[in-house]
Amino acid sequence: MSPTDSAVEPPPGRTVVQNAQLALLLEVTGTPKPGNVDRAHDYDDLRFEHFMAGGVGARRGLELAADGERLGRAFERAVAGMSQQRAGNTQFGALLVLVPMVRAAADGDLSGSHAGDLAEATTVADAADFYRAFEHVDVAVDDPPEGMDALDVRRGADAVPAVEQQSVTLYDVMVDSAEVDGIAREWSGEFARSFDAAERLLDRDGPVPDRTARIFLELLAEEPDTFVATQHDRETAERATERAATALAGDADPWALANEFVAAEVNPGTTADLTAAALFVALERGLEI
Amino acid sequence: MSPTDSAVEPPPGRTVVQNAQLALLLEVTGTPKPGNVDRAHDYDDLRFEHFMAGGVGARRGLELAADGERLGRAFERAVAGMSQQRAGNTQFGALLVLVPMVRAAADGDLSGSHAGDLAEATTVADAADFYRAFEHVDVAVDDPPEGMDALDVRRGADAVPAVEQQSVTLYDVMVDSAEVDGIAREWSGEFARSFDAAERLLDRDGPVPDRTARIFLELLAEEPDTFVATQHDRETAERATERAATALAGDADPWALANEFVAAEVNPGTTADLTAAALFVALERGLEI
Repeated sequence: MSPTDSAVEPPPGRTVVQNAQLALLLEVTGTPKPGNVDRAHDYDDLRFEHFMAGGVGARRGLELAADGERLGRAFERAVAGMSQQRAGNTQFGALLVLVPMVRAAADGDLSGSHAGDLAEATTVADAADFYRAFEHVDVAVDDPPEGMDALDVRRGADAVPAVEQQSVTLYDVMVDSAEVDGIAREWSGEFARSFDAAERLLDRDGPVPDRTARIFLELLAEEPDTFVATQHDRETAERATERAATALAGDADPWALANEFVAAEVNPGTTADLTAAALFVALERGLEI
Repeated sequence: MSPTDSAVEPPPGRTVVQNAQLALLLEVTGTPKPGNVDRAHDYDDLRFEHFMAGGVGARRGLELAADGERLGRAFERAVAGMSQQRAGNTQFGALLVLVPMVRAAADGDLSGSHAGDLAEATTVADAADFYRAFEHVDVAVDDPPEGMDALDVRRGADAVPAVEQQSVTLYDVMVDSAEVDGIAREWSGEFARSFDAAERLLDRDGPVPDRTARIFLELLAEEPDTFVATQHDRETAERATERAATALAGDADPWALANEFVAAEVNPGTTADLTAAALFVALERGLEI
């Protein structure tokens, strides 16, 4: 017997892509995240198991992002894989914010400035991919600004010729949407809220799903959710933010708030997407599960 | 503009490996599965998030199984990846039963007879890998039969020289353990219960987590859980099976049973592992999420 017979290879650490996939799963595990599907809450047609299947299916696109594929293409493939369950859109916004961060981490420099540079370097081809991603799922979005009908994302791939003709890059799309979309604001602002929330996740104690629920509430209390503003209106989004602040202050029970939001179909999806991004950064920086 | 500008590649279907990973996640999503960690139940030191991380980490080993790597080695790597969270063992038994099934599915013949042939064809090298897998996590197992101390799995890699000297294959290990271990019984019996339960999952209606919880209860009502027998004793396992039958008959509430089992630390883990295997087969056969 040689002395190597009983040798055991050490367990592998989680890769960048595995951390991104785990962030998607942990986001939906954290509860209560008022108004969102989570470990303890479903909507009739959007349930926890759809997020499990979405997280599994998104992985190939995340791999493409890590491997240096065009970011728009990696995103479009992640969305395509995510869409392979009956509910359609589960984590579109989370994938959009994760893709440049995954590339930044794979580059060995997961910082806001590097992720921001990657976002800024996207091209017209990335924008075309982004529009194609809307072919795979229905995503609630606002009407485009006046005179911009040709670039309405709801046109999906049909808008690609206009995108190319007008030489719009994905970064341009994000900058143009920053005012009305919290994910676009991350893209055009060096992912500031995601990185900040990651540090708070790391600083806390206790089970990660509990920290996740807390960070979600903090993010919601800090800024109105743009997905709620789109689905309902600005007032509803502002009221949800006030309610979150009340819960944070201890003057409302987050579990009761969750029931209240689910009943009113107030679904702060953008805040959940930022929570997923924060979890990814925190996992990359050593958050233990 | 060429006519291909707006072309969108169709979404990819789930691969064999993705279905295996999803089966791991859906198993723990199904609730109530009395005595197990699931979407609504935790133990203090074994929680839902550990299963999320375990399911993410196991994937590389599942890929090796699909790619034709030695089954023992694929299993050992799956366990190594699974172990990268604080709780240690989450789904050791599920991976053990999944690995030959993943290979069978990758071969294009996910049948009991083919999976059984693959199990039977395992070698001494597979057995050595199996022993090495015990280096990564603590798994509750019975004392070995008299005179078999050298082959005690709890010796982990230290037992490898004895395994090689005695030319024990992984299939031999499974056949020898079939009486006391429900997973070994699947290996030595063409995975009969897993395939049977898969058909029942497919035949039912309703959300998959509900079907999963029901199948778990049926499997537990049919046969005492060998993990419970190991952790406690045969009587406890038989009593748990009787209680499951009572719940199935409508004479006990499965949610109350879950509280009762968790309080008594009766954790029918082998039954959960078979449930994961059944989910994998059902997903491969078209179960929609």
